[in-house]
Amino acid sequence: MTHRSVSVVGLDADDTLWHNETLFRDTQERFHDLVVRYADDDVDIDAQLLAVERRNLDLFGYGVKGFTLSLVETAIEVTRGRVPALEIENILAWGKDMLAHPVELLDGVAEIVHQLAERYRLMIITKGDLLHQETKVARSGLADIVEAVEIVSEKDEPTYGRLFEQHRVDPVTFVMVGNSVASDVLPVIALGARAVHVPFHTTWALEAADAHDSDVYPTLSSIRELPGTLRAFERRS
Amino acid sequence: MTHRSVSVVGLDADDTLWHNETLFRDTQERFHDLVVRYADDDVDIDAQLLAVERRNLDLFGYGVKGFTLSLVETAIEVTRGRVPALEIENILAWGKDMLAHPVELLDGVAEIVHQLAERYRLMIITKGDLLHQETKVARSGLADIVEAVEIVSEKDEPTYGRLFEQHRVDPVTFVMVGNSVASDVLPVIALGARAVHVPFHTTWALEAADAHDSDVYPTLSSIRELPGTLRAFERRS
Repeated sequence: MTHRSVSVVGLDADDTLWHNETLFRDTQERFHDLVVRYADDDVDIDAQLLAVERRNLDLFGYGVKGFTLSLVETAIEVTRGRVPALEIENILAWGKDMLAHPVELLDGVAEIVHQLAERYRLMIITKGDLLHQETKVARSGLADIVEAVEIVSEKDEPTYGRLFEQHRVDPVTFVMVGNSVASDVLPVIALGARAVHVPFHTTWALEAADAHDSDVYPTLSSIRELPGTLRAFERRS
Repeated sequence: MTHRSVSVVGLDADDTLWHNETLFRDTQERFHDLVVRYADDDVDIDAQLLAVERRNLDLFGYGVKGFTLSLVETAIEVTRGRVPALEIENILAWGKDMLAHPVELLDGVAEIVHQLAERYRLMIITKGDLLHQETKVARSGLADIVEAVEIVSEKDEPTYGRLFEQHRVDPVTFVMVGNSVASDVLPVIALGARAVHVPFHTTWALEAADAHDSDVYPTLSSIRELPGTLRAFERRS
């Protein structure tokens, strides 16, 4: 079955190619330490932030700008307006720090992505703020070795379907690689493509998915295992 | 010269197809009225907001989320932290109102765009927050009659060049239509394509461009003149 060969590999970016969630977690910790000084004792600041992020998701989408707006909103809510404006100014500055933060590739990424480029067409498929994601791809040093960079508002079946059509990709020759089961694995499998899960050590609650059947897709402990996994896909088909 | 025929028409969205700047202006007026109560007498609030927007542009890009963050930042700056957090909560709510606002097509747009679709391939090319722009296109009722929707972080020569390549568009057969000379007209003309300027009655200061030579591109007083203008392009070539 030659059509089961792998010709295009999709790569998630945040927490697959480079650090991202760590930056959000660090900011969230600083946020907690700032806000706790003005909040009522019985408020669960982290739970409230998550609730605010969840209710803003449809309007803000993913990314640092929406996160920063949700931080400010949460700070005001959990302190019932007692947080001083000058503290809110600090929160805004953290958001800018996140946007300006250097891109730190995860271990093995530079080497493995270069290696994959010799054998497969590569696409980076990522969601978040448009300009910020473009900037991160540019800073990553990977822009020139991938065929396309697609920044999308949601990584679901309709989005992947549109990308396959646009880039003339036969789903059966496509493999998506990423740290999020919900965004990188399940929707592409539903479309008849394959996926490889490379978990990051921490996952945002809104990206969490249920445990899986390892027959459906492999889970790697490092992106270094990816070339071998892809070759095994080709042998199996 | 058959290659000078028009085959693809690019349409800007904000303030070309639907109202946008009006919404920003309205919010800015409410912002002024709120902040002036806490600001020093000699502060020019609007000038300060523009300065904040300009310095944040490289980090935030275009769109309502960045605008809202700049409003909050400006409110704190011009009041030297005296603005109460509960007032900042109002500013956040205005940002959400803008994101949730219904799309109001400009006069003649629905009719003219349907008419153009019979004769040309149509593309909407717009910048701003990814999810918000997608939502507006969906709400506009125009999504199904255009061939592609491209949401970009900047409308400059490299961006248009990339779109031409991606959509296999010969620039000499392409005409861009929009209200911004800087974003919709000059970069496409520099690439050998043509452009039509349809001014909106008000333009954001960061989009303003110098007066022009009307031989280079036509300026219409209404989008209703567009079909005739495009046909004149074809006759002239």
